[in-house]
Amino acid sequence: MQDATVPAELYVQVQQFYARQMGLLDDGRPDDWAGTFTEDAVFQEASRLDEPLRGREAIRASSRARQKRLDEQKIDFRHWLGMLDVSRNDDGSLRTRAYALAMRTPRGGALDIFASVVCHDHLVPVNGSWQVRHRDLHHDGSGRD
Amino acid sequence: MQDATVPAELYVQVQQFYARQMGLLDDGRPDDWAGTFTEDAVFQEASRLDEPLRGREAIRASSRARQKRLDEQKIDFRHWLGMLDVSRNDDGSLRTRAYALAMRTPRGGALDIFASVVCHDHLVPVNGSWQVRHRDLHHDGSGRD
Amino acid sequence: MQDATVPAELYVQVQQFYARQMGLLDDGRPDDWAGTFTEDAVFQEASRLDEPLRGREAIRASSRARQKRLDEQKIDFRHWLGMLDVSRNDDGSLRTRAYALAMRTPRGGALDIFASVVCHDHLVPVNGSWQVRHRDLHHDGSGRD
Repeated sequence: MQDATVPAELYVQVQQFYARQMGLLDDGRPDDWAGTFTEDAVFQEASRLDEPLRGREAIRASSRARQKRLDEQKIDFRHWLGMLDVSRNDDGSLRTRAYALAMRTPRGGALDIFASVVCHDHLVPVNGSWQVRHRDLHHDGSGRD
Repeated sequence: MQDATVPAELYVQVQQFYARQMGLLDDGRPDDWAGTFTEDAVFQEASRLDEPLRGREAIRASSRARQKRLDEQKIDFRHWLGMLDVSRNDDGSLRTRAYALAMRTPRGGALDIFASVVCHDHLVPVNGSWQVRHRDLHHDGSGRD
Repeated sequence: MQDATVPAELYVQVQQFYARQMGLLDDGRPDDWAGTFTEDAVFQEASRLDEPLRGREAIRASSRARQKRLDEQKIDFRHWLGMLDVSRNDDGSLRTRAYALAMRTPRGGALDIFASVVCHDHLVPVNGSWQVRHRDLHHDGSGRD
């Protein structure tokens, strides 16, 4: 617990960033979602992806395909982030850690909260907001790296 | 992500408002809960209510009846809100969006997280705090409006 | 809802404190976890513990034993806190209330969110951060005190 906490303005900015970013994904807007990553972003999900997604275009293509499947299956998907920790680098970029829950509800069906994930992001400032340059997702139950 | 974020003081006020507001409901205090809505509040839950609840008295009556059922069934109920986004209107009122999870635990029984809901509120400033003038709840799995 | 809200800097400090504190427990660092409690801390969990844990050393011993079991069983454990309310005492200490979810994922197995808990803490300022002097956990479904 030795590390300094970040100022409230910064912490709240990041909270709002995540609420909006994950909202874009959950609202079925894969192009806007992709726009929250840098052009050269790396999206890493050790337990799900053989290879990381490299670049905004790869993230966009992947999330479009994913949304198409969800639409066909009539599934509402939600990503909750919480338990956020933020630290600031000397260059003004941020390192964040958050817990995430992934959940889905099929049309007329029951809620299924199926994954607990730890999300490590590298955020960089862009035009007064933030973009994700690197995201590393680690699924609980997949073994320690 | 083009929208401005709100100042930390405001965002945190709203976080605390929701923690306390939902706490009143979950603590079995329907009258205090009703007091967090304006006299003319509208409570809309497309997938659960045929007609919106109109006015604080209707909200009070509905939540008293609900609490009576929970007491009889010995059920602890929790409403989690998270992934909060807040935007400010020119008139000083707020529009909020949050994800919500509804969960219940019967006496001696297992936790059941049974609904993922998106909550859109219109909050108005009253005596240094906030009241809900309009709440719109949309349950995942109930179909897009 | 008559109580004043606390300033954003304080509220966010406490949010970060909990993200880091519970992160230490979930990351399998029972000694660092114990260090977030005062030497004379009391840890009370009415529905699980016959007697409260009294003192940091008792908390350390208990959490080491717990971690050993989780390691043997290859279980990832997460504690989510949310719906945080904070109030400040005249002496500079804090009273907090938060909802908590306890969840586990066995290696290769499914996520199980198995308990909803209400956490009441007494936090005291130590070296620019906070320590828990008293924690009271109440499990939903265990009956009202």
